[in-house]
Amino acid sequence: MQSLQEKASAWSGVDQADAFAIDESNLFEKLGLQSFINLSTNFYTRVYDDEEEWFRSMFANSKKEDAIQNQYEFFVQRMGGPPLYSQRKGHPALIGRHRPFPVTHEAAERWLQHMQNAMDESVDIDQDSKVKMMNFFRHTAFFLVAGNELKNQNQNNQVACKHGASKPAEE
Amino acid sequence: MQSLQEKASAWSGVDQADAFAIDESNLFEKLGLQSFINLSTNFYTRVYDDEEEWFRSMFANSKKEDAIQNQYEFFVQRMGGPPLYSQRKGHPALIGRHRPFPVTHEAAERWLQHMQNAMDESVDIDQDSKVKMMNFFRHTAFFLVAGNELKNQNQNNQVACKHGASKPAEE
Repeated sequence: MQSLQEKASAWSGVDQADAFAIDESNLFEKLGLQSFINLSTNFYTRVYDDEEEWFRSMFANSKKEDAIQNQYEFFVQRMGGPPLYSQRKGHPALIGRHRPFPVTHEAAERWLQHMQNAMDESVDIDQDSKVKMMNFFRHTAFFLVAGNELKNQNQNNQVACKHGASKPAEE
Repeated sequence: MQSLQEKASAWSGVDQADAFAIDESNLFEKLGLQSFINLSTNFYTRVYDDEEEWFRSMFANSKKEDAIQNQYEFFVQRMGGPPLYSQRKGHPALIGRHRPFPVTHEAAERWLQHMQNAMDESVDIDQDSKVKMMNFFRHTAFFLVAGNELKNQNQNNQVACKHGASKPAEE
């Protein structure tokens, strides 16, 4: 059975080494806090304005400003800066915390398209850093698709149970 | 509803700030790689020799040397050292990767008892670092219990489905 990271590499087309090339230098020190805040603000402005309701609605239970803070604090922490995310929320636990959301291949691609557009508009981030960050994001997005499929294995079990039952409990 | 980190604090008795006091200084630089290797080797020697079969059996599908490496590489990465874990395995994704295991309150306490015993035998780690690390481990162990209970919500749904069915599929 493929591991989470093997699936992430296969589906994203980004191998492990390229995904974690963000660790070759300290991107937080190079770019500074405000670059990350600007990126996440641009990204979530796109997400909350998305014309595709199926994608936009996944974020409907969070305030935009909270989503922005959660994201840039995680990016800062993961890319060499102070552990802002863990100080406030604990372990990133990426798969666990994405559990409520249907992180499909299609959702990963749409997330990445918004992030690519936000990156393209960023004037704070140099080209080399943009490449490293997008490789990290692309690998991570499909790592979460792999995590999501673990969850679906359970749901499929539930469906099998319902189909097998002549008088399901909740219908 | 309590968040994962709120449950972790409530159940462990370790608040967020104490749990992440490991970030106040660079423990990897202070302690060095060999201290982490020694700690994880001592810890897993205890785990693989545990007289309690219910606990020991959770680790039966992994080789002891792999368990040791996974653990010390994560500790090194999280406590200020090079990202050894992510270079080899990707995101820690603590909840996602513990998904196959029944991380109960009882299992968390037994894990922590083995770790406390390993700490007590460590001659490489100073007392202040031991306190910080045990607070981190204690909070994290119960963070994973909280993550495990998310999973059980699904399983309970399945049980409810089976009970409601007059002729369950697999019986």
